[in-house]
Amino acid sequence: MFCPNLQNPISAIGTIHTPFKQATGTPIQSSVANGAEGTIELLAEFAPGLKDLEGFDRIWLIYQFDRASEPQLIVRPYLDPSEHGIFATRSPSRPNKIGMSPVRLFGIQGNLLRIADVDMLDGTPLLDIKPYVPAFDHFTIQRAGWYKDKSTAGAVADDRFEPKKSQGT
Amino acid sequence: MFCPNLQNPISAIGTIHTPFKQATGTPIQSSVANGAEGTIELLAEFAPGLKDLEGFDRIWLIYQFDRASEPQLIVRPYLDPSEHGIFATRSPSRPNKIGMSPVRLFGIQGNLLRIADVDMLDGTPLLDIKPYVPAFDHFTIQRAGWYKDKSTAGAVADDRFEPKKSQGT
Repeated sequence: MFCPNLQNPISAIGTIHTPFKQATGTPIQSSVANGAEGTIELLAEFAPGLKDLEGFDRIWLIYQFDRASEPQLIVRPYLDPSEHGIFATRSPSRPNKIGMSPVRLFGIQGNLLRIADVDMLDGTPLLDIKPYVPAFDHFTIQRAGWYKDKSTAGAVADDRFEPKKSQGT
Repeated sequence: MFCPNLQNPISAIGTIHTPFKQATGTPIQSSVANGAEGTIELLAEFAPGLKDLEGFDRIWLIYQFDRASEPQLIVRPYLDPSEHGIFATRSPSRPNKIGMSPVRLFGIQGNLLRIADVDMLDGTPLLDIKPYVPAFDHFTIQRAGWYKDKSTAGAVADDRFEPKKSQGT
């Protein structure tokens, strides 16, 4: 089995449940997820780490795009017909396949978190939870590269970052 | 060797170089890093993935706090004398030890990126780079939990999340 080059190997700490069973039709970002609701099932051993998280309206989820196709360095992202380097996009088929989403937090019961604005597939492995803190996460910037002026309203994914299905039966 | 429970094991894709050799004195967030400068050395094989990233003023770095102490579920974070669950903080000694920082991007040459507002230790293993996109990353929220009203100006770390040094010689 392949073992990574990190001294501290990274493992799933829970699972994100959402209404989305396949990429096609899944919101491309939390910001355009129209309140889609989900649940986090944290492994029970980590539940004590949730203390005081309920005070936050929004939380960052860090997770793995476990069903994305193999990493590509050049991609055509959902919002643009042109090619861009993978690190200049938020596309899932990236090295390490790490995703991050700022979802709404509605409530916590034991090791279960009720969330909304979910934009990941059902069953996605969760790697971390952090509070969304405007003082840390809001920056006024001048240049947002090729994303500038792109309309994201209602944007949903298609199957371009899913593994290619084998042909025939 | 321990192998994680992810189908897609996560490995370092490069190294972040910063002026900070130890936790004590390191800025606690990019937002209070006062422009501290650093460099990313991306593994050369991934350099094509940087295409068009130069159009962005700021980029998210996802990395591992490789020198943090073993994960703790309850911590006293830098900004508060009270205890909080690790997932309600941005403290480094967390399960998977994943950090994220929105740093400024100054320029790219080949596989080297010049960055500023760095808040991680020199030699930190890099896991991902994503563009900072206000349409995706800015949310107006009402409740920021215990972080509300905390002053972060000039806040730097101490050694509380470093492994305890053995006593004696």
